[in-house]
Amino acid sequence: VRELELIESVQRVLAGGPGDRARAGRVVRGPGDDAAVVRGDGYAITSIDTLVDGVHFRSGQLTAAEIGHRAMASALSDLAAMACAPGEAYIALCLPPQTAGDDALELVRAARDVCDRHGATIAGGDVSSSETLTVTVTVVGWSADPEALIGRDGARPGDLVAVTGALGGAGAGLALLDGRASAGAVNERAAAELHRRYARPEPRFEAARALRALGATALIDVSDGVATDARHLAARSGVELRLTLSQLPRDEGVDEIAAQLQVDAGEFAASAGEDYELCACLPPAAPELLAADAELRAALGPLTWIGRVLEGPGALTFTDGDAATLAGFEHGRG
Amino acid sequence: VRELELIESVQRVLAGGPGDRARAGRVVRGPGDDAAVVRGDGYAITSIDTLVDGVHFRSGQLTAAEIGHRAMASALSDLAAMACAPGEAYIALCLPPQTAGDDALELVRAARDVCDRHGATIAGGDVSSSETLTVTVTVVGWSADPEALIGRDGARPGDLVAVTGALGGAGAGLALLDGRASAGAVNERAAAELHRRYARPEPRFEAARALRALGATALIDVSDGVATDARHLAARSGVELRLTLSQLPRDEGVDEIAAQLQVDAGEFAASAGEDYELCACLPPAAPELLAADAELRAALGPLTWIGRVLEGPGALTFTDGDAATLAGFEHGRG
Repeated sequence: VRELELIESVQRVLAGGPGDRARAGRVVRGPGDDAAVVRGDGYAITSIDTLVDGVHFRSGQLTAAEIGHRAMASALSDLAAMACAPGEAYIALCLPPQTAGDDALELVRAARDVCDRHGATIAGGDVSSSETLTVTVTVVGWSADPEALIGRDGARPGDLVAVTGALGGAGAGLALLDGRASAGAVNERAAAELHRRYARPEPRFEAARALRALGATALIDVSDGVATDARHLAARSGVELRLTLSQLPRDEGVDEIAAQLQVDAGEFAASAGEDYELCACLPPAAPELLAADAELRAALGPLTWIGRVLEGPGALTFTDGDAATLAGFEHGRG
Repeated sequence: VRELELIESVQRVLAGGPGDRARAGRVVRGPGDDAAVVRGDGYAITSIDTLVDGVHFRSGQLTAAEIGHRAMASALSDLAAMACAPGEAYIALCLPPQTAGDDALELVRAARDVCDRHGATIAGGDVSSSETLTVTVTVVGWSADPEALIGRDGARPGDLVAVTGALGGAGAGLALLDGRASAGAVNERAAAELHRRYARPEPRFEAARALRALGATALIDVSDGVATDARHLAARSGVELRLTLSQLPRDEGVDEIAAQLQVDAGEFAASAGEDYELCACLPPAAPELLAADAELRAALGPLTWIGRVLEGPGALTFTDGDAATLAGFEHGRG
């Protein structure tokens, strides 16, 4: 009975908010029937992603709203990584029996807020009880032209490698939450920002559109650290990606946290993960294109050139570090 | 690293089998990129569904293959309940650290086999570790015409209510697994069949197509027991559904198990749930149509008329039982 009440409350949350406008447009039937009915387009781009308490986050370290935000943002980020605009999301919640009803609703509201901000609609959901708090989100985007999507497999020798925003902030925020690093090394504002980077990532849809306009040949979101994710690009494209660790852009405070952890700041930024920035391969003309187009620069935000693409057997190398070491190098993630 | 190996093994399973043929047709990009890319159609019909160990099943009671089968079949059943043919499935596995790799693959293989049998393709997946074995499946079907779908809200006064197949078998199978009932009361073949009813349900796609051909006005799959599911039809359609408990078709052995449990066999069949049969409202002319069409009868299998639709305030009533009692009546499910 409690489950039924929760389902009804969750459905009320899903039925509210600006998402309603999108629903009126594309969603013919939302939550409440056996399945949602959504007007389609040429191609559906779909990804399923799970966050598990104790593995991808610890419920004691994050608020319910932060968990909901993070689950939705990380799922949507997979669509950004295809350069695909978001359409609908479907959220399956597994809640421990002791979960407060308000927490469940806060979680769903925060997930819905992320969707609203990026033009997505939560069109369906499922609520179960479980010993382990688990949030699974399926996201769907639509594209009339699959050639406009950017996979992991299009990088060509001669391309340049770039990354959006800055890296390491989420990992540093987690190190602070874990108590592996102490906030004393950074100022209060920087510490709060590192927490936000971990707890409230935002999928980079606008940056993805700009990267597509620049002719990006391969694209991935930086969920496991660029040392792992760039390796996926190399492997799937059958090329060598050669990066320079010291060139990786780092969030404010990352150097101090890395120093506390006694690891190289570049290695930390390359491997801490959870940043949900985008790593792209771009044709050699891209920097010139970008320099000439202020609108693209504004949409993209900071972009840093971190390496280049060579002929090679699907490998990641560094000009200034050891790829083999970085392969197994993770900072406290499950 | 173990997670990565498992993901690769799971992807190999997903890449094999007859699903490949469907993939070549509709799936442009399958597992291995940030998201799957699937050729769409007019409308996407989508449902997300989670099975949690200890809540929806107990891993000690079922094999890994049975868990995978059941997770996929119960998710696909939501598409059957819309009279929608299945397209793609996306499966998110949360596996306890002690899970044998073979078990994970058996689970996915069994889920894939269910898909193959019903013309669906697993187009994406996610593998995580978790303390609690959890399987979330998102299923998508495609329809050029949303009017051809059957929701829960179309029942009209004067309609008849019917149910496919037989009920109570899954609940009786679970009672045997739980040791709440003993197999001694039924013969060995019946006991095995009751177990199969619980562990290996099949979504009723062919029956759903036949019900649509008969003009079904409202449709739901019997996942929580017809006493609960028919109530959803009544509430969403704004009508009264009036059923006769004693007319509910019962699987062989259900009467004996109900007697052991000291509950009325009709009440047991109405409330034990997990049967994944279909409950439909049909226009008054449907029995005559069905009598005249051998092909429809063959597609539909056994169909039992169990009640009728009256003007009313969205309520479920019984000619021979107490709806209020049945509302909270569940047999050992979480």
